[in-house]
Amino acid sequence: MQLSSLNTPALLLDQARLDRNIQTMNGKIQSLSSRLRPHLKTCKSRSVAERILKPGDGGITVSTLKEAEYFLEQGYTDILYAISIVPGKLQQIKTLMDQGAKLTLLLDTVEAARLVAKTAVQLNAEFPCLIEIDCDGKRAGLKPGDATISDIANLLHRQKGTSLAGVMTHAGGSYYCKGETELAAMAEQERAAITEAAEQIRTAGLTCPIVSMGSTPTALFAKSLEGVTEVRAGVYVFHDLVMQALGVCDDTDIALSVLSTIISHNRSENRILIDAGGLALSADPGKKNPLGEQHYGLACDPVTCKPLDNLWVTSTNQEHGLISLDKTSLTFDDLPIGKQLRILPNHACMTAAAYSGYHVTDGGPVIIDYWERCNHW
Amino acid sequence: MQLSSLNTPALLLDQARLDRNIQTMNGKIQSLSSRLRPHLKTCKSRSVAERILKPGDGGITVSTLKEAEYFLEQGYTDILYAISIVPGKLQQIKTLMDQGAKLTLLLDTVEAARLVAKTAVQLNAEFPCLIEIDCDGKRAGLKPGDATISDIANLLHRQKGTSLAGVMTHAGGSYYCKGETELAAMAEQERAAITEAAEQIRTAGLTCPIVSMGSTPTALFAKSLEGVTEVRAGVYVFHDLVMQALGVCDDTDIALSVLSTIISHNRSENRILIDAGGLALSADPGKKNPLGEQHYGLACDPVTCKPLDNLWVTSTNQEHGLISLDKTSLTFDDLPIGKQLRILPNHACMTAAAYSGYHVTDGGPVIIDYWERCNHW
Repeated sequence: MQLSSLNTPALLLDQARLDRNIQTMNGKIQSLSSRLRPHLKTCKSRSVAERILKPGDGGITVSTLKEAEYFLEQGYTDILYAISIVPGKLQQIKTLMDQGAKLTLLLDTVEAARLVAKTAVQLNAEFPCLIEIDCDGKRAGLKPGDATISDIANLLHRQKGTSLAGVMTHAGGSYYCKGETELAAMAEQERAAITEAAEQIRTAGLTCPIVSMGSTPTALFAKSLEGVTEVRAGVYVFHDLVMQALGVCDDTDIALSVLSTIISHNRSENRILIDAGGLALSADPGKKNPLGEQHYGLACDPVTCKPLDNLWVTSTNQEHGLISLDKTSLTFDDLPIGKQLRILPNHACMTAAAYSGYHVTDGGPVIIDYWERCNHW
Repeated sequence: MQLSSLNTPALLLDQARLDRNIQTMNGKIQSLSSRLRPHLKTCKSRSVAERILKPGDGGITVSTLKEAEYFLEQGYTDILYAISIVPGKLQQIKTLMDQGAKLTLLLDTVEAARLVAKTAVQLNAEFPCLIEIDCDGKRAGLKPGDATISDIANLLHRQKGTSLAGVMTHAGGSYYCKGETELAAMAEQERAAITEAAEQIRTAGLTCPIVSMGSTPTALFAKSLEGVTEVRAGVYVFHDLVMQALGVCDDTDIALSVLSTIISHNRSENRILIDAGGLALSADPGKKNPLGEQHYGLACDPVTCKPLDNLWVTSTNQEHGLISLDKTSLTFDDLPIGKQLRILPNHACMTAAAYSGYHVTDGGPVIIDYWERCNHW
């Protein structure tokens, strides 16, 4: 099928860019002698997962139990569910474990450690748990040195129903860095925090087999992964305009885009309208564009995916995208009604979630495959 | 099933609030002697649609052809597809018409009018089209008095393959109003624009059977609908925090919410974490809260849906919602790990789109039904 025959809006995935992104990350993590545990929350797709690693070749990370279930069906058994666990989800987790999943859970409070143990006993199960460490104050976890880390470690080790699997952190702060120096410093901050926490546990006389860190920016800019047993990253498979704005990738690395159609010219307001709005692109505001403006995506040639001159999606309604012509050299004549535009997304994880699958391209005008996604919870 | 047994995050719909919102709008439009053509882009659900009007009892509005197809299957034949039409979608529209749909299309350029006619002839079809009118500069359409309106009207009337169905406008600007006076003024601005455009067409010697306006705020605050043959509104069925911030509804009118679970305490940052993040709530920034802060939802009691004291979702990651305790009287002890919270959404249309359906409640702790949605394109 031709791109030009697709109903729009449609989600496109450039296979060559995807494969290059996967190779870049694999090479990077290998060069630093660590191991990648890809975070599949971005792709939620077995077809993408298989290009990263085959079932049996290593562990994966997920953000929902729906993903855990889906990827287990594909044969991925070593699964880290990287969201703080609550008792209400343990029955479902036990079912997945009974089906062959080797699931590792996450928590960062004494309360959760006790609750998990209590439910584990009721379910006649044992849940391996990582302790979440906070390396930058951005989301969850305990700061290295916090005595609670040792308390939880001891609890997980001692309690019936839990075991201490190690420590994990995520440098969400890397999304506020820009350029190589800042990104490398954040990667080192993340590494230092997680290895310090691991050392704290070992000093307390316990083992800490897993020392897990990761985010796409820090994984790609780390200079050392010493003491880190695994690195998690997700959005690198697709990249997006947020990653590009941080200096993590170029726009030619962005593998995900939304195919849209120009549906109207608003000459009195000097803008065109496309049929990709807030639902098709996501309402994620991303980072400001090089003009210092808020935007919701960058319009590109529909086939080559080469960005057009300052053609930013300036605002969105549910099914409308508005593109101002104020800052571009392009005119209404260059952008006739019915013409397709391909939009690079601000935040690939959010944009992809609006679709049930990917239309795969090989960089040309032809759709070569369709890959399903596993959405919802 | 009990609310407390639901996997979270889950989308909840309060049936009593829904029904009350539907009655309020019906009463309002009847009192002004117009007719409601509900916009089903918000609910995308036959179960909700049937509570507004039964198939055969009137026309509906849709924002995607997927919705058109879905609602046609339920017996709704009079369908306005309220997004500017492009030739690439006409084959699908012709198919729907062959299946019994009486579809009305929308456009606002001479180019589109010509393109539709050209394709219509190829498809051996005739497409009734509304001309979109711009009443506030916010999105699409031609300003009343613009000679292009008459040009398009003449084209639609004269050309083989098209017919002139009337005029349509949408006061997106109502989302920037606040309070009764501003909202009523915007409703009158919308009415004045659309009736002026209709008059322009009639003065040119043509008929203008449909004079369509609408948005939830203007529909609910209009003082007159004279000359308006139909009113479109969508989000009123659920309402949301944006509508509440404008003064269009109270928080007790908001029928849609996301059930979530408290998954962690971050004591060093004085915040709790929930398992509803950017995907579950949407990244739509909505309006600032009464404290003047950006937020992503308001936490409520899980059963009564009564807002808790200043418990705003302060930021989101993909599957994490962060709730600061800085401005609330509630403490970590009031919000134990595992407790459920119900989150009122910023923008109901965007939030609902992340789910395949609604868990329906009757205001108590029990789930009484599940209503599917028709997502995607």
